[in-house]
Amino acid sequence: MTDVVPQDIVDAQGRIAGRVHRTPLLSSATLDRALGHRIVFKAENLQRIGAFKLRGAMNTLLRLREEGSLPAEVCAFSSGNHAQAVAYAARELGVKATIFIPKQASAIKIAATRACGAEVVVTETRQIAEASVAGLIDTGAAFIHPYDNPYVIAGQGTACLEALQAGVEADAVFAPCGGGGLMSGTFLATRLARPEAKVFATEPLIANDAAQTLRTGEIVRLSDTPMTVADGVRTLSVSPRTLHYLKQLDGLYEIAEDEILYWTQWLTHLLKSVIEPTSAMNMAGVVRWLKTQDQPRTVLVILSGGNIAPETQMQIWTRDYLQRFPSL
Amino acid sequence: MTDVVPQDIVDAQGRIAGRVHRTPLLSSATLDRALGHRIVFKAENLQRIGAFKLRGAMNTLLRLREEGSLPAEVCAFSSGNHAQAVAYAARELGVKATIFIPKQASAIKIAATRACGAEVVVTETRQIAEASVAGLIDTGAAFIHPYDNPYVIAGQGTACLEALQAGVEADAVFAPCGGGGLMSGTFLATRLARPEAKVFATEPLIANDAAQTLRTGEIVRLSDTPMTVADGVRTLSVSPRTLHYLKQLDGLYEIAEDEILYWTQWLTHLLKSVIEPTSAMNMAGVVRWLKTQDQPRTVLVILSGGNIAPETQMQIWTRDYLQRFPSL
Repeated sequence: MTDVVPQDIVDAQGRIAGRVHRTPLLSSATLDRALGHRIVFKAENLQRIGAFKLRGAMNTLLRLREEGSLPAEVCAFSSGNHAQAVAYAARELGVKATIFIPKQASAIKIAATRACGAEVVVTETRQIAEASVAGLIDTGAAFIHPYDNPYVIAGQGTACLEALQAGVEADAVFAPCGGGGLMSGTFLATRLARPEAKVFATEPLIANDAAQTLRTGEIVRLSDTPMTVADGVRTLSVSPRTLHYLKQLDGLYEIAEDEILYWTQWLTHLLKSVIEPTSAMNMAGVVRWLKTQDQPRTVLVILSGGNIAPETQMQIWTRDYLQRFPSL
Repeated sequence: MTDVVPQDIVDAQGRIAGRVHRTPLLSSATLDRALGHRIVFKAENLQRIGAFKLRGAMNTLLRLREEGSLPAEVCAFSSGNHAQAVAYAARELGVKATIFIPKQASAIKIAATRACGAEVVVTETRQIAEASVAGLIDTGAAFIHPYDNPYVIAGQGTACLEALQAGVEADAVFAPCGGGGLMSGTFLATRLARPEAKVFATEPLIANDAAQTLRTGEIVRLSDTPMTVADGVRTLSVSPRTLHYLKQLDGLYEIAEDEILYWTQWLTHLLKSVIEPTSAMNMAGVVRWLKTQDQPRTVLVILSGGNIAPETQMQIWTRDYLQRFPSL
């Protein structure tokens, strides 16, 4: 197992510079007043393809090219943003991409992946999508794992590194935990650029394989795709590589669906930006942590993405959560 | 009747500088590729209070103070963004604001207006809200009309002026038409900063009082609040002052509800920004105009605001319009 070290995030940043957006930092004076703390959002929803995932895919493909081992074809499985990320990065570098997407994925994500020039194979289940890559690897295609890959992890960490380099004096950093790629990179970037800051993960309560894994010490694998509204973290399990970093976090908050919806409405309203439930989920963890603090804190939140299917929008806006103002 | 001249927009810009955001310009490479033209969006949804309305209210109150005629109280009627704009501007200048809001207005808008420190009086109907200001004017309060006021018009024009000063080489400028305040200011700003550009209005087909007015030459007043999803332009009529400028436009496009919803979904998706249906409506007009053009054009669209109640979000996302990619 290749370990990832903080310097890998710096190398990734140099490698992908100019190929990914340096996304802005957002904040809301209304929110800060309501909570009595400062919350700074790294807006990866405004990243190319609408999510941080491009950072890891781009770093991995560029690293393969550096090594002289980038084949004529790459492949991946994904029901979401990683699909578009690999498709986009492959087109940029002039190689073919084949992406296996389970049919449960939203039509808009399938269309967007095809629009990036990838060949998309729609499979019956997530398990079949995962299994399908094996055949392609046999023909020489490079498989880009969505999180269990050191260069993917290093790439994802550049979002947090950029924010800390921009001068965010974070006392704590929050990011969502699916397979743990973003979380691992975020942890490493924080240790490098702001070692005194705490690092927390958030995870949906109904998809809490990482929390169960941390409690038992053994990787817990969900048997079926959990139907949380936070569709960016519907992964079935973390990997030994990401678990190594997850164990070093200052905490992991498990968030109920209701809280995810509450914060999706409020962040959308306050930031006037399209925020995936997976990203908004962090705020429920932030509030729980801030309740334990006795002085004003600065919190950095990694807004992972902004790709939302119409049916998910319907789910988000079914109830009116804007009636209840945010508070600690 | 006090006429507004282009120089008034420049004066307004100087007056409100530092008190309103210089909002960014947004664009989408995907959209430009799909249409074969360049569309630049002036993002007034990212303005303070979430809409361009602050420009006009701030300009009017500051102008009154310059003249030494700003009383201790101002008042307004509004079911939407003008309410918050007057409340915010009044608090900034340290005067009391009383706002009459019909009860049909969304709870979040009422709460936001109160949060700006205004006294909010909720009335049974829009007509009662409009009539209620008379009593307060009698006690010396200054009434800030939502559009039939030369300083409001001049303030609203600063959004377009800013965009053109930033170097947008617009062949055409589009803005939504409710009472005509934004439209009049946009027209004057364009004549000043880019006289060769055409200026177009858009209006919901089911709230087409301005279109009827332009056809008949007489101001047509709707008898009841039209229930278009574009709730920023539910005004009952234009005024003689705004009609003077509307007559000089290059055209007004009437837009079906379905087209408004289509473009609200697509602009939200492409720009990752919260776009009011009233603002997205413009794109339906843009596409109709572009169909008549035989060379690539640059179009400036004034995105008027981003305040959307949860029940309107539900209406926006009921059908999936993202299945059909934009095209001319």
